[in-house]
Amino acid sequence: MRALQEMILQEGRVLPNNILQVDQFLNHQVDTLLMEQVGIEFAKRFAEENVTKVLTLEASGIVPANMTALKLGVPLIIAKKSKSLTLAHALFTADVHSYTKRETSNIAVAENAIHIEDRILIIDDFLANGEATKGLLTIIEKAGATTVGVGIVIEKSFQPGRQWLDENGIRVESLARISSLQGGTVAFVKESALIEE
Amino acid sequence: MRALQEMILQEGRVLPNNILQVDQFLNHQVDTLLMEQVGIEFAKRFAEENVTKVLTLEASGIVPANMTALKLGVPLIIAKKSKSLTLAHALFTADVHSYTKRETSNIAVAENAIHIEDRILIIDDFLANGEATKGLLTIIEKAGATTVGVGIVIEKSFQPGRQWLDENGIRVESLARISSLQGGTVAFVKESALIEE
Repeated sequence: MRALQEMILQEGRVLPNNILQVDQFLNHQVDTLLMEQVGIEFAKRFAEENVTKVLTLEASGIVPANMTALKLGVPLIIAKKSKSLTLAHALFTADVHSYTKRETSNIAVAENAIHIEDRILIIDDFLANGEATKGLLTIIEKAGATTVGVGIVIEKSFQPGRQWLDENGIRVESLARISSLQGGTVAFVKESALIEE
Repeated sequence: MRALQEMILQEGRVLPNNILQVDQFLNHQVDTLLMEQVGIEFAKRFAEENVTKVLTLEASGIVPANMTALKLGVPLIIAKKSKSLTLAHALFTADVHSYTKRETSNIAVAENAIHIEDRILIIDDFLANGEATKGLLTIIEKAGATTVGVGIVIEKSFQPGRQWLDENGIRVESLARISSLQGGTVAFVKESALIEE
């Protein structure tokens, strides 16, 4: 998605340990008009899939997931990172390990939020090691529902998450695919390259 | 806002300790079309205020704040509850005490996200004791920016947050004002009552 790639080149900052900081338009200050375009794009790509619900994990995936669900005209489910006081007692849960935060957290979705006939689209801001996505897939599996695919705003294609999803036959649509952050420079995967390396 | 009040009566569950569970349409499963209407309503009420940015606190305020910012055509700023690895180093911070979670957390906004000329609209899902709102007001004050008002999806008018904001001359627009949850029944403040008590 060209506008997204341009924004990454313009506003993204490469930090140590292969972290791409996108706090100017995605994770902290949010460009709401760009995120509407992101939602429109995901809704278009998954238009034939009869999606019944969009699923994401709090907190940084919420905005693109919200826009996608709105454009598809379906509810959004926000998986919670810890048991909230007001969350229903019957829960589907999964463990998610964060390499950046070096901790494993338990994520949860209320059992009455996902049903066996649901066709779920997972949306997240980043795909790196794929741990968050695997946790969401586990929850969908426990609910007996169908995963129609995964929509990712920014994919770090040099980390193992994408390959794992491909090998497991799960459709992935990433709006920006980054092949490398080496030397502090953002390089995109060539198939979707805005600027050829 | 009539559609919101109807949804609260239909789907809200009153739990012990004056907790109103709205996991069916606001906090966990999100009714994205209703939240679009919420955004349109806030944008209408604050249309004359020349809002430059919408500010909220992660995670449950993000959806209504995102919809409001989109409808106003301005960026959204999501205050973070803990220092994120990828957040900028120069931060405006404030302490926020949660009565339900019985903990005080530090919230932060990057200094480069709010400028002195900004006119900020705070949006949150709930107003009860007002602690989260006070923390966001502190951050806006530290940045030297202007608070144009506070938009709340569900106000618990029987708790002290609303009165504190009124006494401090801060404009508050709440789409549903709840006067009581006693006996497990939702009662609305009469000025906006859908069903008269």
